[in-house]
Amino acid sequence: MSFQNKLLNIIEKNQSVLCIGLDTHADRIPEHLKNRENPLYDFNKAIIDKTVQYAAAYKINTAFYEACGIMGWEALKKTVQYIPDSVLTIVDAKRGDIGNTSRLYAQALFNELNADAITVNPLMGYDSVYPFIENPEKGVFFLCLTSNPGTKDFQHFNDGTQTLYSKIALTVKTWNEKQNCGLVVGATHPYELNTIREWVPELPLLIPGIGAQGGDLEKSVKNGTDERGSNALFNASRSIIFASKGTDFAEKAAQKAKKTYRALNDARKDKTMNR
Amino acid sequence: MSFQNKLLNIIEKNQSVLCIGLDTHADRIPEHLKNRENPLYDFNKAIIDKTVQYAAAYKINTAFYEACGIMGWEALKKTVQYIPDSVLTIVDAKRGDIGNTSRLYAQALFNELNADAITVNPLMGYDSVYPFIENPEKGVFFLCLTSNPGTKDFQHFNDGTQTLYSKIALTVKTWNEKQNCGLVVGATHPYELNTIREWVPELPLLIPGIGAQGGDLEKSVKNGTDERGSNALFNASRSIIFASKGTDFAEKAAQKAKKTYRALNDARKDKTMNR
Repeated sequence: MSFQNKLLNIIEKNQSVLCIGLDTHADRIPEHLKNRENPLYDFNKAIIDKTVQYAAAYKINTAFYEACGIMGWEALKKTVQYIPDSVLTIVDAKRGDIGNTSRLYAQALFNELNADAITVNPLMGYDSVYPFIENPEKGVFFLCLTSNPGTKDFQHFNDGTQTLYSKIALTVKTWNEKQNCGLVVGATHPYELNTIREWVPELPLLIPGIGAQGGDLEKSVKNGTDERGSNALFNASRSIIFASKGTDFAEKAAQKAKKTYRALNDARKDKTMNR
Repeated sequence: MSFQNKLLNIIEKNQSVLCIGLDTHADRIPEHLKNRENPLYDFNKAIIDKTVQYAAAYKINTAFYEACGIMGWEALKKTVQYIPDSVLTIVDAKRGDIGNTSRLYAQALFNELNADAITVNPLMGYDSVYPFIENPEKGVFFLCLTSNPGTKDFQHFNDGTQTLYSKIALTVKTWNEKQNCGLVVGATHPYELNTIREWVPELPLLIPGIGAQGGDLEKSVKNGTDERGSNALFNASRSIIFASKGTDFAEKAAQKAKKTYRALNDARKDKTMNR
């Protein structure tokens, strides 16, 4: 089954477009976990147990694990193994290199870690991304218009008829022969999200920034989903997983996940009922 | 001391602009090393011992290590520790993410691994790179015009007055307040290398592609170095480290490194004598 069909099925089955970001910053883990053998993994396990009923996917940002060396790498691997098959696992690594090197990254992320999907930086062009999109079952979300302020430096670079991010969106469309390509578009750009959705209705969108980064959830759902309120995942990380610093961290994360899940589904309902 | 001064001093002291790429592909390691506890590290150690007299820097591409999981991560860390202070250690990770995440990558690469310099993908703009360039002693080579064919997809994107790679070069120039920024420009683009050198004479260039990728060594030196034949590093990986598959792999790598080192110095001499 293609990655896109897997994604659409899970959204339908779980009735959720929520992606929970496991940006597990070692410094922000509750005190009572810090003496465990692998605090990052124990934290993630508890978060997953309590939040999985609201999720369509988990997104694991490799930076937070690499910063902890071997222990972090182990936590990353064990976390991916622990995530149940009922949800997607997206490894947010933003890789991209010359062909022979990207092939090794693909091996590291898809085979060694067994991610369902990854994020890739497309700057180096087709031969740098080809090894990532060979397998139809494995998905790739390409950075298109990211959620941070720095997008103005290069992603908005404009040749008079199109911007770099539109060029990326339309190029990825041509790479999507195996129905396994998607785009990363920040919730902090609701207007551009609408335009990108119109250009590439078939591509799944991974939309970060509805949590701590302050993107508009309702507008993002309205502009980012397809006509059925699907084909997009909305990521919140810190706002969910660090909802409390106490021993109740997992329960508080679950409450916040439930609230976000409901808000997303309300916005989807609004959209599909007002068509 | 700023990273750039450190680089210029090492080039002067070692009389070398050669960067040796430790793209240590597990499948290409000689048979007799494959049963070792950590074959990647043992391979690198032998290569470093025999080639260090010709080198100004080693560049370690993280992909080849990540592909081997925990063992790879250990090999990466131990290799960086093993590289002597007489040369620079560049960790080629091509990272770049939103600010709070880039900060963690900076911690992973500069503190946890203790790299002298890293490569960074600038696509996400200033706030995504700021955490990497805070420390003047640590260097960052930003992807500008890479050595692979895919550069035509986005790096050559043109607004009528400038290309994306020229915009990157001129933007990085403004980021270089602490004399610790450089650019990655492939030896496979000798003409553009000349132009970029003229635009940003002060920025160190990391120039891959003189080995297996077939870039023109003489032209690259002529166009990529400054008037003293300095301020640039030329990287060859596979052509040096995999010069032989036998038990003589390190000797053969040393011969190839010596040959490349001499060719680079001959080209530098040609340039400075013909000024």
